[in-house]
Amino acid sequence: MPDNNHLHNELSDSVNPAYHQKPGKLNSAKEYADGIQKGNRAFLSRAITLIESTKNEYRELGYSILEKCYDSTGNSIRIGITGVPGVGKSTFIEKFGTYLIGQGKKVAVLTIDPSSSVTKGSILGDKTRMETLAVQENAFIRPTPTAGALGGVAGKTREVILLCEAAGFDTIIVETVGVGQSEISVKTMVDFFLLLMLAGAGDELQGIKRGIMETADLVIINKADGQNIENANRARSDYQHALSLFPPHPSGWKTPVQTASSIKNYGINEAWEVIKEYYEQVNGSGYFINNRREQLVYWLHEAIESELKTRFFSQPNVRKKLAQLENEVLSGSMNPARAASELIKLSR
Amino acid sequence: MPDNNHLHNELSDSVNPAYHQKPGKLNSAKEYADGIQKGNRAFLSRAITLIESTKNEYRELGYSILEKCYDSTGNSIRIGITGVPGVGKSTFIEKFGTYLIGQGKKVAVLTIDPSSSVTKGSILGDKTRMETLAVQENAFIRPTPTAGALGGVAGKTREVILLCEAAGFDTIIVETVGVGQSEISVKTMVDFFLLLMLAGAGDELQGIKRGIMETADLVIINKADGQNIENANRARSDYQHALSLFPPHPSGWKTPVQTASSIKNYGINEAWEVIKEYYEQVNGSGYFINNRREQLVYWLHEAIESELKTRFFSQPNVRKKLAQLENEVLSGSMNPARAASELIKLSR
Repeated sequence: MPDNNHLHNELSDSVNPAYHQKPGKLNSAKEYADGIQKGNRAFLSRAITLIESTKNEYRELGYSILEKCYDSTGNSIRIGITGVPGVGKSTFIEKFGTYLIGQGKKVAVLTIDPSSSVTKGSILGDKTRMETLAVQENAFIRPTPTAGALGGVAGKTREVILLCEAAGFDTIIVETVGVGQSEISVKTMVDFFLLLMLAGAGDELQGIKRGIMETADLVIINKADGQNIENANRARSDYQHALSLFPPHPSGWKTPVQTASSIKNYGINEAWEVIKEYYEQVNGSGYFINNRREQLVYWLHEAIESELKTRFFSQPNVRKKLAQLENEVLSGSMNPARAASELIKLSR
Repeated sequence: MPDNNHLHNELSDSVNPAYHQKPGKLNSAKEYADGIQKGNRAFLSRAITLIESTKNEYRELGYSILEKCYDSTGNSIRIGITGVPGVGKSTFIEKFGTYLIGQGKKVAVLTIDPSSSVTKGSILGDKTRMETLAVQENAFIRPTPTAGALGGVAGKTREVILLCEAAGFDTIIVETVGVGQSEISVKTMVDFFLLLMLAGAGDELQGIKRGIMETADLVIINKADGQNIENANRARSDYQHALSLFPPHPSGWKTPVQTASSIKNYGINEAWEVIKEYYEQVNGSGYFINNRREQLVYWLHEAIESELKTRFFSQPNVRKKLAQLENEVLSGSMNPARAASELIKLSR
């Protein structure tokens, strides 16, 4: 039985304190699951905190909740949005999310910020940056701590997506900063991947991980307003041509390049039209469902590897020996494969 | 003490039977290492077979040989060359290798063909395709079996590179078919990555894994001869422009796009000039040595993960349970993370 005090302490440190001001007692998995499926946001938020917990017992409760909700998951389109800092992701998502709510959608926005963690992070920044969207009844905004999280940079985002779906959100937006490994992970948990860029290439490209552009399903040249319009249009046509030279999408989809301006509210509904068109095409061809199945198997194997590594490296003698072997490998006195064998022997 | 008969049986099945017609007795690690460092090709070939062996005792002997050679490794430029089937890789490498030998270089060519394995493979194809190069005294051509090899698609290529360096080869070419995971692995073990393409985009792009083009250090539009010249030149300028729009190389290097024709012997020495220029730039900046150090640490961790997985999945009850859990995950009755926990518990 989980110790409520521990959880309350953890909840008070949580990234989303607003939902936990009166944590009350811990409910059963069934109560949480029922509440979530009726759209209870406090329960949704609590379940997310449980699943993100570093304590096994809380995480187990979180998984139990998720499993009881499982039949209500999957009925959404999952959209990954990435771009370097300064590209205008939050403003774009605020406009985009508000537009979708106007179309009758229920929108969950999960932001993955590798610089944030459970106890210290850019929470206020995230909350205030999307304040118009945040107050909407049909919106749910949740920053995901990643620093130090189990399961790598994307933490438990996959499970959080499922919980949001169970709570009735039909459009899930996962926002990442396109500068690290996180967008690679995110690509494996979304249906559609949108890359935001700025016109003028140059400096802002520095941050984008190579290989990301080729995997986008839609590229948007953002901030196409004022004196920027001409540059943005030129960039649009340049990138459209460039992408046509690169290997094609496995589904046969041709990645469009568009322009957008959050200030002018331009390019927002156009982005949604593209996503709908994509969905129709890949749903019709069977690619959509196949891709989700492949993602499931991928995540199973990712989770197995992650658990194997966590268990192995949690042994103090392994960690100590690893540091020594890394030195020997770097100094050239030992081959990596041999060093690996030596290390593995420790836990036999 | 290794059982010679086993090794001899394995050697007679080897991918490179020519070097093993008279296997004789097994020597000591020191004898092999001394022989390799004196340029004994039969010993080099034997050591490679030992390191590629699936038998622990042979592999251990292989690693001992490698470790005794370690001080003689590293003095080469390691070049990865990839491209889809039909792009003309082998012909290009034959011309390129022959040119390098004319420049006084000693060239080892390691071909990774995911379709080949130790006992069945495209060995004859590989041998005959490079027959001019193969007969050169300063060339060493070795297909690497990958199907079923330990350590993933790239097998023991990293260790084979080191053995070739110890034998005095100063230019190592690793050839992969750019259609699978192998070129991702290869990228992490070479200094320079060359992508061969054909003009006209379209069909041949189907095979290239997305993300590969952005990581190339040199793109060559091959078969730029006859009626193809005009198309090739247009493709060259298109790709050069396209690459300029993509995220830059971490070293600051600007990936050039060139044309080449193996028939006309054109673009071969130009490719080498680019590689030399790259080497001077990244060696001067410290990127070269840093990159090799990062690769070493990467390979240590890769090797650890690979051993952890091999050990875990070699348990019959784990394999049986995995099949069952995969079904439950795919049917939606279990979450991947929970399934992973269940599986891990089996070996506790």
